[in-house]
Amino acid sequence: MGKEITSRSQDYAQWYNDLILKSGLADYSAVRGCMVIKPYGFALWENMRDELDRMFKDTGHVNAYFPLFVPKSLFEAEEKNAEGFAKECAVVTHYRLKTDPENKGKLIVDPEAKLEEELVVRPTSEAIIWNTYKGWIQSYRDLPILVNQWANVVRWEMRTRLFLRTAEFLWQEGHTAHATKEEAIIEAEKMLEVYADFAENFMAVPVIKGLKTANERFAGAEETYCIEALMQDGKALQAGTSHFLGQNFAKAFDVKFSDKTNTLDYVWATSWGVSTRLIGGLVMAHSDDDGLILPPKIAPLQVVIVPIYKNDVEKGAIANKVHQLVSEFKQLGIRIKFDDTDNARPGWKFAEYEMKGVPVRVAIGPRDLANNMAEVARRDTKEKLSVSLDNLPYYIKTLLDEIQLNLFTKAKQFRDEHITKADTWDDFVKLLDEKGGFVAAHWDGTGETEDKIKELTKATIRCIPLDNKQEDGTCILTGKPSIQRVLFARAY
Amino acid sequence: MGKEITSRSQDYAQWYNDLILKSGLADYSAVRGCMVIKPYGFALWENMRDELDRMFKDTGHVNAYFPLFVPKSLFEAEEKNAEGFAKECAVVTHYRLKTDPENKGKLIVDPEAKLEEELVVRPTSEAIIWNTYKGWIQSYRDLPILVNQWANVVRWEMRTRLFLRTAEFLWQEGHTAHATKEEAIIEAEKMLEVYADFAENFMAVPVIKGLKTANERFAGAEETYCIEALMQDGKALQAGTSHFLGQNFAKAFDVKFSDKTNTLDYVWATSWGVSTRLIGGLVMAHSDDDGLILPPKIAPLQVVIVPIYKNDVEKGAIANKVHQLVSEFKQLGIRIKFDDTDNARPGWKFAEYEMKGVPVRVAIGPRDLANNMAEVARRDTKEKLSVSLDNLPYYIKTLLDEIQLNLFTKAKQFRDEHITKADTWDDFVKLLDEKGGFVAAHWDGTGETEDKIKELTKATIRCIPLDNKQEDGTCILTGKPSIQRVLFARAY
Repeated sequence: MGKEITSRSQDYAQWYNDLILKSGLADYSAVRGCMVIKPYGFALWENMRDELDRMFKDTGHVNAYFPLFVPKSLFEAEEKNAEGFAKECAVVTHYRLKTDPENKGKLIVDPEAKLEEELVVRPTSEAIIWNTYKGWIQSYRDLPILVNQWANVVRWEMRTRLFLRTAEFLWQEGHTAHATKEEAIIEAEKMLEVYADFAENFMAVPVIKGLKTANERFAGAEETYCIEALMQDGKALQAGTSHFLGQNFAKAFDVKFSDKTNTLDYVWATSWGVSTRLIGGLVMAHSDDDGLILPPKIAPLQVVIVPIYKNDVEKGAIANKVHQLVSEFKQLGIRIKFDDTDNARPGWKFAEYEMKGVPVRVAIGPRDLANNMAEVARRDTKEKLSVSLDNLPYYIKTLLDEIQLNLFTKAKQFRDEHITKADTWDDFVKLLDEKGGFVAAHWDGTGETEDKIKELTKATIRCIPLDNKQEDGTCILTGKPSIQRVLFARAY
Repeated sequence: MGKEITSRSQDYAQWYNDLILKSGLADYSAVRGCMVIKPYGFALWENMRDELDRMFKDTGHVNAYFPLFVPKSLFEAEEKNAEGFAKECAVVTHYRLKTDPENKGKLIVDPEAKLEEELVVRPTSEAIIWNTYKGWIQSYRDLPILVNQWANVVRWEMRTRLFLRTAEFLWQEGHTAHATKEEAIIEAEKMLEVYADFAENFMAVPVIKGLKTANERFAGAEETYCIEALMQDGKALQAGTSHFLGQNFAKAFDVKFSDKTNTLDYVWATSWGVSTRLIGGLVMAHSDDDGLILPPKIAPLQVVIVPIYKNDVEKGAIANKVHQLVSEFKQLGIRIKFDDTDNARPGWKFAEYEMKGVPVRVAIGPRDLANNMAEVARRDTKEKLSVSLDNLPYYIKTLLDEIQLNLFTKAKQFRDEHITKADTWDDFVKLLDEKGGFVAAHWDGTGETEDKIKELTKATIRCIPLDNKQEDGTCILTGKPSIQRVLFARAY
């Protein structure tokens, strides 16, 4: 079938790449580090995006669109942010090509069309947005501004991986402006909750909500909140971040407002984003050696019906019944496909839909039809069951909920089993090397120690959990006093 | 109120700009030729996009996403296409910034981070997409490919106007691949019908479906189909195009397929697109000197209810009733807002919602409430009527349909009155100068004559209507024989 994929135990990274390519989620492109999101992958992204968009709107946000390009002088205005992203900026320097006088049919960059000021392709949009907000904000009546943008951004990464780290990626970035510090912090925390809700209840991926250390903070933020997920290979994945930006961008772009007493003050800000990277995390959290396993709530296709027949008469009889069933499924809001194409055998189709992670497969042959039954197969557990055609749509509607819950429960159990305490350096290293997952250990609170641990083990502090227990202890590396454990892990 | 806009008769171009800015559709940005689409404008675009997306999916298309960047060597592969867009390409030449050693806190382009091959920011995606399709197509079984992409594109225009012509704009671009020429032509024509359906039945803008002349064809197309709309100032606007690309891109990227007899042939292609430019056309087709007039089907807000009260008791009584009404409106799928903010007087709110083009305004005061009535005002005709609160939601649901139809009827009448025949050069020029609109005139069929007419009058051939009557005549400029009239106009 030419669709064999490397097993996880053999080579996890290769398994991941095989899966993305062979399930039809994405493809490599001719542009270094950029990928093509194929129709199946994009349909998955659309389901995720639409759900997030609904959640953003339900929490009072509106969408807008800001330019792709950031003039260099604006980009550098907030120094820490600029410094953080400078090394990975694609830069537009010219605005015209012309025919190569020495090479017919070829083009060269027209040296006379050099821009006076270079344009940075946005790696994130704080600069261009806060420069715009300056014109929108005069008084407290103009606040809050609760804007989100769905956009492409470019970060010139040296080592890229499909979905997880690509030079161009799709994301949403919320950029809000507030009259008070408290309101901005509440907003940053609220959006973290939205992300956690989405990850757990739609992607079926359990996440730990926490704060980043100063070292790992977004460039230009006062505080970075994050959700951290765990992959099957024991590595962590940052699945979303929400930043309290203080007044840093307001100061960089001179955005002040007059409050009710006519006093001028700088505006308070947040920004928050999730990206197509989530798809990489989704794949690595649930899938197996036979292909993708997708949670029903966001799967492009929730149910596929494959007819099994030897001739046109049998096919016609099955199709007749199935068309009626399909409309019942659709009335229940279930995304279903009846695959009656003749160009592949049922076995091939079964493998194909397993590869694509369709949550439920239904097979109907002549004998099933005679018995008014169908064979229902779950993608997650591989269980098969005979079900009466009479209540098939309702049965499967309930089954989809069960699968959704099962995926979450399984991933949560795995995650919970992979949060381990370490109290000695040897245990710490051994846990990282042999068990993986999050290691809860004491840390002396300094960036230097954090750097040193990263250098020695490749593990970083993923987060300080929001509900962290305060507990006296000594730093795993330096032995200095510590008031709480933090979560270390190797990460994507 | 600080919201005065220039009148159309005074300065049509200024009226348009005032309207876009003051209604909150868009804003200028710090990037030359690029604009910010503000939340109100983006909500309008979302409604348009969602409807088009539904129509594309209903006609069998799926969405995907291809890279923003096109390596120069791919960009130049289809020579006519490359030549057509070369003059307006933003080009990425470097992938890193670094600290300016001579200017603390400033950044410069790192000369050591020069790309080996420059990247063109896509002005359109045929090149990157056909280079990708090469890997997806081997046999007739892989065809057709019916893919659409929602994306941002960049064309470095020298003279820009909000929505109508911006350096960066949002659009969709369909790119399809077919086994036969006939199938590709049917696809190109089908998508033109989709665009015409959308323009007329959702935007309420009547359009003429036609073919472009060779001079006006998309660079790299064999045939360009278009829909042409008419603005209130008598200028035409190209609202959408659908291209039959022949085998040009398949040949440029060597994309062949084997048919059922195992014969290899190049694949046939189409591409088709509409953009945020449609918003400019929408504004200019319907709006008046008081602000926007938006068709109900795509208006971000269809109904606004403004309470009129002198004190909190009156306000409370009105709010009580309105909250109940609002939920009835929502059950009917009507996008409604109850504006009970205290920071503006009713008169100011009325003017604001007129500016924003909300199709129906409802005002309710204490006396209305006592009489169980409300004052309903139409944005399109400015008519006001007292309506019983009992059937208000149903009444307005019908009224919204009536407004939608009225906008189309009015625009169509104006358009039809502005298609005029000219049989002499003097009449032709006089019509263009004094009446405007489309002038139906004979043309000898040559590009030279077309160029000359453009030079003399600034009018171009907008299209050769699809259902054009064949009629012998003589060219308006050269007197040479002609078999049909074509539609000339000055255009945006």
